Amino acid sequence: MSSYTLGIDYGTNSVRAVVFSCENGEEIGAQVFNYPSGDEGVLVDPKDDNLARQHPGDYIEGLAVAVTGAIQAARASDGFSPDRVIGIGVDTTASTPMPVNEKNEPLGVLPDWKDNLAAQAWLWKDHTSADEAARITGTAREHRPHYLAKCGEVYSSEWFWSKVWHCLNTSPDVFDAAHSWVELADFIPAVLTGKTRPEDMRRGVCAAGHKALYAEDWNGLPDKQFLGLLDPKLASLRDRLYEKAYDLSESAGGLCSEWAERLGLPEGIPVAIGAIDAHFGAVGAGVREGVLVKILGTSACDITVAALERQLPDIPGIAGIVNGSVLPGFYGIEAGQAAVGDIFNWFVKHVCRGDGSLHESLTAEAEKQKPGESGLLALDWNNGNRNVLIDPNLTGLLAGQTLHTTQADIYRALIEGTAFGARAIIERLREYDVPIERIVCCGGIAEKNPMLMQIYADVTNCTMQVARSGQAPALGSAISAAVAAGKANGGYDDFVSAQDAMTGVQDTEYQPDPANLEVYNKLYSLYRIVHDGFGGVSQSVDVSGIMKELLEIKRAQRGGEG
Amino acid sequence: MSSYTLGIDYGTNSVRAVVFSCENGEEIGAQVFNYPSGDEGVLVDPKDDNLARQHPGDYIEGLAVAVTGAIQAARASDGFSPDRVIGIGVDTTASTPMPVNEKNEPLGVLPDWKDNLAAQAWLWKDHTSADEAARITGTAREHRPHYLAKCGEVYSSEWFWSKVWHCLNTSPDVFDAAHSWVELADFIPAVLTGKTRPEDMRRGVCAAGHKALYAEDWNGLPDKQFLGLLDPKLASLRDRLYEKAYDLSESAGGLCSEWAERLGLPEGIPVAIGAIDAHFGAVGAGVREGVLVKILGTSACDITVAALERQLPDIPGIAGIVNGSVLPGFYGIEAGQAAVGDIFNWFVKHVCRGDGSLHESLTAEAEKQKPGESGLLALDWNNGNRNVLIDPNLTGLLAGQTLHTTQADIYRALIEGTAFGARAIIERLREYDVPIERIVCCGGIAEKNPMLMQIYADVTNCTMQVARSGQAPALGSAISAAVAAGKANGGYDDFVSAQDAMTGVQDTEYQPDPANLEVYNKLYSLYRIVHDGFGGVSQSVDVSGIMKELLEIKRAQRGGEG
Repeated sequence: MSSYTLGIDYGTNSVRAVVFSCENGEEIGAQVFNYPSGDEGVLVDPKDDNLARQHPGDYIEGLAVAVTGAIQAARASDGFSPDRVIGIGVDTTASTPMPVNEKNEPLGVLPDWKDNLAAQAWLWKDHTSADEAARITGTAREHRPHYLAKCGEVYSSEWFWSKVWHCLNTSPDVFDAAHSWVELADFIPAVLTGKTRPEDMRRGVCAAGHKALYAEDWNGLPDKQFLGLLDPKLASLRDRLYEKAYDLSESAGGLCSEWAERLGLPEGIPVAIGAIDAHFGAVGAGVREGVLVKILGTSACDITVAALERQLPDIPGIAGIVNGSVLPGFYGIEAGQAAVGDIFNWFVKHVCRGDGSLHESLTAEAEKQKPGESGLLALDWNNGNRNVLIDPNLTGLLAGQTLHTTQADIYRALIEGTAFGARAIIERLREYDVPIERIVCCGGIAEKNPMLMQIYADVTNCTMQVARSGQAPALGSAISAAVAAGKANGGYDDFVSAQDAMTGVQDTEYQPDPANLEVYNKLYSLYRIVHDGFGGVSQSVDVSGIMKELLEIKRAQRGGEG
Repeated sequence: MSSYTLGIDYGTNSVRAVVFSCENGEEIGAQVFNYPSGDEGVLVDPKDDNLARQHPGDYIEGLAVAVTGAIQAARASDGFSPDRVIGIGVDTTASTPMPVNEKNEPLGVLPDWKDNLAAQAWLWKDHTSADEAARITGTAREHRPHYLAKCGEVYSSEWFWSKVWHCLNTSPDVFDAAHSWVELADFIPAVLTGKTRPEDMRRGVCAAGHKALYAEDWNGLPDKQFLGLLDPKLASLRDRLYEKAYDLSESAGGLCSEWAERLGLPEGIPVAIGAIDAHFGAVGAGVREGVLVKILGTSACDITVAALERQLPDIPGIAGIVNGSVLPGFYGIEAGQAAVGDIFNWFVKHVCRGDGSLHESLTAEAEKQKPGESGLLALDWNNGNRNVLIDPNLTGLLAGQTLHTTQADIYRALIEGTAFGARAIIERLREYDVPIERIVCCGGIAEKNPMLMQIYADVTNCTMQVARSGQAPALGSAISAAVAAGKANGGYDDFVSAQDAMTGVQDTEYQPDPANLEVYNKLYSLYRIVHDGFGGVSQSVDVSGIMKELLEIKRAQRGGEG
């Protein structure tokens, strides 16, 4: 008899629930719920562009509407019935923490606090806490340098402690009223499993490790002495947070009766530990050792895993390495590029003043070129560099322009620049014994731009594939639910079996072309010189040959045409 | 009683004759003649893009039509009559040499040769002789390094010996039929003065020095031994060229009876020694010690002079220093930038795909910005670097782009990049004791773009002025004629008096703004690091601070706005 799991994916503007078949990962029914509050679901402050909050009530309302809608849609499928749903998984944006009371109710839904922006969920892209982030970084640099080694030497304003501390500094009434703070990724499983006390929740190691400086190496969250250096109230908050965070080898609990009834699902089915959307996206795209999952959108998020036996050291320039954050028994490794699609959009919109269709015509033109034929070399830093330099104060660079350089030349060079950035990350991971053999991409760009995929294959010397599911995060959540349920209940006992059955890649894949690789190896060596020089890896570089070598490659590639 | 001189300016597509008042340099009458042959006057070869020749018959026909037309037009002016014309001056493109027979007739006009492209005038922009140029450079580097020191270490394919030798190599029949070779700048005065034997002509030092390696230091043209290393036939040609080239302290001769009659001008009036258009343009713009004349067009040509007493050494990176090539008694110094307007046109046309009107709207937008506000830094090398690096194999560079960088940001950065290139030349000249206090510009850009002029003033810390005459080369030619005629005949005895009377600048001038200068000093120091690194001045540079400093300057300038 068929079995099904539910994946629930909390995005920035909406929540999507999807019913998947455990047999083959097929999508059986789905429903999206757009958050009704604020500006497309985001509470903003006209006086402060950095502020981005969400109303926790939207999450709860969306949970009911999206899940019941998805189940209703799934009913059209032969063999489906709600009592065949064997588990639920949840992924969300992060760090999106919210203050809760002793009953685990978000302050933001309570009458006293509902109009207070500080009492709402602090959305991942809220940047109000820049000062606190800088002070956390500074204090850690002096007193706990090993904390920084795990998060790329800079603690971000987007992360848990920055936000909580900013609340303490600017809205102490909210901070004082909060019994605890809960990440959205932990909150939804707590709701579904009826955990009415924060101390009863099982928090996930994914958000804890990647956003809150949690690590087994130092017995969990940052120690109280360190937090006390920031503010004594943060030290005391630590007692009301958690000692242990869980990976996916255990579940968050069973579906409580209240929500079983509300959703029309069997009571007691397991709810998986919640995780960050990108990480479950990687699971849904088939991540395993040797496979890097690349979520290609406005920016790029790279996720891979490495067996614990490898005993990975800190990897310089790679921000996030967390035991169990993606798959149990593996280090979860997160890296990324601060801008990819954003760079192409910038060029089309701001430089060419074109509309979206220009992407297609420039791609068609650029596709006719050989590698290096433009004579151009671009750094992909228009939004700073996330890895491996971890420096937001870097900017773009384009070299090699002549009086004949065209829009398509530049467009292709920008794509190549992002591919070089991707290669820099891969090379760094390999240097530290993280195996990468192929890349599975998710996201619109991967489906829409075969030229980009071929360039990435040629530059990285990796096979490039596209994940079969267009809803990889929801699928990853559903897979975690199938594993939480176990084989005996129609699921799987381990992630390898579950991923083998439920994930896949599209038929079209992109193999590196050896001739192109050779040219790109030369261009990449030039990229590295410029990268290391402008990126501060080296205080002394020889860039005197860059332009001449670009011209030589260009001439050789053009000459080869005729 | 008023007196007048004629300036005749041979350009790439046409010849222009202008009658000027000796009293004040006023333009009394003018006539343009478009060369009828080829593609807008240029003979081309569909099989060879590098080829650019001109039909000498066009020059002679144009001489008659343009001069008689200018005189006819001048008749409308009170007080003018042709017998009050006291001299003629000529400027032309260079190096534009042509083969002539023993009667000083260009082979290109003779029935036997008129259809032979090699027998025509070899226009300045003919690039067929690249191999010969490289071999001349190589041979000189080994055997006559001091030759190269005078021409920027590289002998150009655009210059005299490259062209003559290429003719010898590819059209030996033409070479053998040629009794001598004559620059256009020397040919027209020879025609006007009735010199029917090449050995009777007075060649000008301007084209000789800047294009044919002529220098008094080594007794004229390159020695026969050196030429013999290239080809024995070049060594024997030297005997049929010239031993001495003349500066403007003497004239080329008197107007011959035949041309006096044909033009309706007094027989015997002096015809000045011919010179290169840019050099007479400088004269017409008022060049003197301390004044740099900048001819701003698609590229930029910088001309200034320094008194011979300064005993200038070779100046590294400055291509042309020739005793008397601009004004007698002074070194004539020529430098330039390979692309200026061409870069702005490239950006508008190829990158923005805009039409000419986009220049205006981008200028209007960019004008609102403070220096450094764009956060961008550009190298002005889209067409290589003429000075001070003398390297055609360099290309453009733009750094500092974010996801918000606009067309206007880039447009302004490109203008600033050319201003930095201009400053690099000025600094080099000053280092070697060439005084520069103000800059007088000619060319459309100077008149049309006040923002550019202000940026140049702020970057170079020089007052920027615009020459009063829109026909500076013709005016310079007319001034040379007035000096050749002398005060006794209604002209002047020296260039200072002639220029004081006949040249001037427009009322609007651009003064450096101290606050802007301060910011540009910082940006220029960043430009120099990138310039020296990519330009090969230094094999080791520290570019690690460039992007951060650009961001700091940007933030400071934007912050200062509110």
